[in-house]
Amino acid sequence: MSELETKTPEAANNEAQNQNESASEGQIGLESTVVASVITALEASDEEAVRELVEPLHYSDAADLVEQLNVEQRRQLIEQAHDALDPEFLVEIDETVRDEIIEHIGIENVANAVSNLDTDDAVNVIGELEEEDQQQVLESISVADRAIIEKSLSYPEYSAGRLMQREVMTVPQFWTVGETIDFMRQIAEQDDWAVPDLYYEIVVVDPKHCPVGRVPLSTLLSAKRPVKITDIMSSEIKLISATMDQEEVAHLFRQRDLVSASVVDDEGRLVGMITIDDVVDVIDEEAEEDIMRMGGVREDDFYSAAIDTTRARFSWLFINLGTAIAASLVIGLFQASIEQIVALAVLMPIVASMGGNAGTQTLTVVVRALATKEITPANAMRQVGKEFMVGAINGVLFAVLMGVVAWLWFDVPMLGVVIAMAMVVNLVVAGLAGASIPMALEKVGVDPAIASSVFLTTVTDVIGFLVFLGLGTWLLI
Amino acid sequence: MSELETKTPEAANNEAQNQNESASEGQIGLESTVVASVITALEASDEEAVRELVEPLHYSDAADLVEQLNVEQRRQLIEQAHDALDPEFLVEIDETVRDEIIEHIGIENVANAVSNLDTDDAVNVIGELEEEDQQQVLESISVADRAIIEKSLSYPEYSAGRLMQREVMTVPQFWTVGETIDFMRQIAEQDDWAVPDLYYEIVVVDPKHCPVGRVPLSTLLSAKRPVKITDIMSSEIKLISATMDQEEVAHLFRQRDLVSASVVDDEGRLVGMITIDDVVDVIDEEAEEDIMRMGGVREDDFYSAAIDTTRARFSWLFINLGTAIAASLVIGLFQASIEQIVALAVLMPIVASMGGNAGTQTLTVVVRALATKEITPANAMRQVGKEFMVGAINGVLFAVLMGVVAWLWFDVPMLGVVIAMAMVVNLVVAGLAGASIPMALEKVGVDPAIASSVFLTTVTDVIGFLVFLGLGTWLLI
Repeated sequence: MSELETKTPEAANNEAQNQNESASEGQIGLESTVVASVITALEASDEEAVRELVEPLHYSDAADLVEQLNVEQRRQLIEQAHDALDPEFLVEIDETVRDEIIEHIGIENVANAVSNLDTDDAVNVIGELEEEDQQQVLESISVADRAIIEKSLSYPEYSAGRLMQREVMTVPQFWTVGETIDFMRQIAEQDDWAVPDLYYEIVVVDPKHCPVGRVPLSTLLSAKRPVKITDIMSSEIKLISATMDQEEVAHLFRQRDLVSASVVDDEGRLVGMITIDDVVDVIDEEAEEDIMRMGGVREDDFYSAAIDTTRARFSWLFINLGTAIAASLVIGLFQASIEQIVALAVLMPIVASMGGNAGTQTLTVVVRALATKEITPANAMRQVGKEFMVGAINGVLFAVLMGVVAWLWFDVPMLGVVIAMAMVVNLVVAGLAGASIPMALEKVGVDPAIASSVFLTTVTDVIGFLVFLGLGTWLLI
Repeated sequence: MSELETKTPEAANNEAQNQNESASEGQIGLESTVVASVITALEASDEEAVRELVEPLHYSDAADLVEQLNVEQRRQLIEQAHDALDPEFLVEIDETVRDEIIEHIGIENVANAVSNLDTDDAVNVIGELEEEDQQQVLESISVADRAIIEKSLSYPEYSAGRLMQREVMTVPQFWTVGETIDFMRQIAEQDDWAVPDLYYEIVVVDPKHCPVGRVPLSTLLSAKRPVKITDIMSSEIKLISATMDQEEVAHLFRQRDLVSASVVDDEGRLVGMITIDDVVDVIDEEAEEDIMRMGGVREDDFYSAAIDTTRARFSWLFINLGTAIAASLVIGLFQASIEQIVALAVLMPIVASMGGNAGTQTLTVVVRALATKEITPANAMRQVGKEFMVGAINGVLFAVLMGVVAWLWFDVPMLGVVIAMAMVVNLVVAGLAGASIPMALEKVGVDPAIASSVFLTTVTDVIGFLVFLGLGTWLLI
């Protein structure tokens, strides 16, 4: 369990120093000159220079560097200097790139790198591997480490159990502040204890290892040695079930401004701890996912090869083709009208486009409010009502504006009336659809971020063309 | 300085207990039954019941409750029970709602509430007030508190100086671990020291009050009493300038997995500390902003009145009307062709719509990559090249698909050829425009999230109509 689980305070301290190495330069993250130098050294096949350049890099910067190289440069760097990189760079790197690297360095080297990581980071890396590779990596690390990692892997993906670290500082209820501090000093000297590198609170546990309280380190340090730990602990603690979804975990941390929280199994026994830095990653991922999905991208494909990106985006465009054809079928119903008054064809995209944009505004606000749990049964109908109002007011404003433009453009006053009426109808429909589609999808368990906009544009296109061309046929012909 | 800056460990402990009060129920956040009960009590004008319901709420839940009420209920709740709410709810609440509340409770009560907050939270609330109200609140709080808050307010909005708390635990370089712990115990008993409630590290400062190192509390607790503080501190620390933009601060915290960091003035002297919980709020805000802007919403208007929302969204729709008219002008050029072959009018929205969607996919990935600083001079051109490829491959696939559909639909093989050619051109243009527009905007200092999509849809609409109708005129007439 040694290497994986414990570090002496000196080691932790050295690590902290490495982390801050580039501080004196006053520069955040990776400098572009370093990237350029590495590329030059790689092109010159100067292995020595490459190693010298990458060795001092913080793991986050090393990850950024590898990401910024192209496929060929990446392969060279990994072959020449993968052992000069802090193994933790594997945790920070984009998953697509990580898969590529793991293929190059081989499973033995992965196992080697993984055994130098904290349990939560190790689980993160191993969890992404193929079944077969997982087994191979697990077999090549120590038995004790393996048991810990296998236990974590047994929790579902995206659950608290996967996010937590197994290392927790715990003390029994009957101890004093003095005994606790002495214990902390003592285990820091040993090598075979399950102690985290860095922690912010102590968990007080009962004889069954169920958490009964927590003591922030700053509270521990303000108390005198004879004080009983139960007198300074806060006994009402937020416990996280190991199977809780990571999105819920992030919500809880935000809601309660937590820095760390205990994770328990079904019997209420402490199995690990989640710290805020892991939650920050979850928050980033969730925001990323929402942004990507609303843009019609299944997941971030920035580092994917062109062919994978093409395939991933095809399905979304295919669905969109269906809705576009549906809208064209509506136009097809009015071919005779268009032949008589070609101005209808010229103006029809304006009504559809305005509906689509107004609907997207509403959709964005509502999808985001659903994601942050701001929409509740108490205010859902109020929100739909508000969007109806907004659509109606903007509808009237743009109706007047566009009505005048159409009238002046084609010198047919009735054409202005037709487009004005269509504009009001479509903007009201857009507001109602933009608010109610995501709520309905959420209700039936479909992610509103991914499916809402297809439904919305179908509605605003079909209604836009139908109302405009329908009114045009009725009033102008 | 007392109330604002220091809390005894007991007070801090009680606070921690309150935070965790609802833990036993195993429920995250506010229960909907509580909201319903509060509404019932408000309707019955049962002030007693309202107070009883809101008193035990965590400040985050209190904020959620207030947000979920409608304007009338909100006014009633504030009038009847604002002093029963934890004043910290003002920090958590949506800004639009906060303005509404402050109007109701009056400036004296705001001043009262603010003086019970941490400096960073107080600055947050006061910073959002109008100039005049700021003065009134500042005048009604103690001189010492006022000086601290005025100092923080002197830093620009969205800077590290606004984000930081002034309370930092500092020790001189020549102390030992034992002296440090004794000092921490001693000041916890006093009431007139600038000590944070909860902290994760100690900052070691030189005689000029410049930080020279940091000691995480867990490292301090693992060391023996006679050890010198300089022997366990990490001396390479990331210092944040008080004027650094909050987005940069968030980037640094993420990049270095920090939990807290020292903030220094121009002379390098310690002026405060930023902790990760404040950074989490920034990360949320930045993601929110990107999502909203890409959806054509200037800022989150979920809690705004319908009229304010209408006004805010109007300007975006107005710009969009301009681009829609531009696209219609292009169609207008081909009126004669459409009169002859009305199928062109039926099919033309398909080409434009597919271009818009494909372009939005690319745009989303690139805007996000710019926001997370993943695009650099080293990989920008590679990305544009990749999007060209993706556009070309998907363009050919959809060209074949749509070509066949158009041919079968109108029984004119050449119409299939025309739409196929237009599809390839528009999807390639969409890929190139989707990648290069945000990069160009970033280069000239315009936020790519807000302006990219207008430019993109203008390009894909104009090119889509122009190529399809142009080819149709040339090949079919």
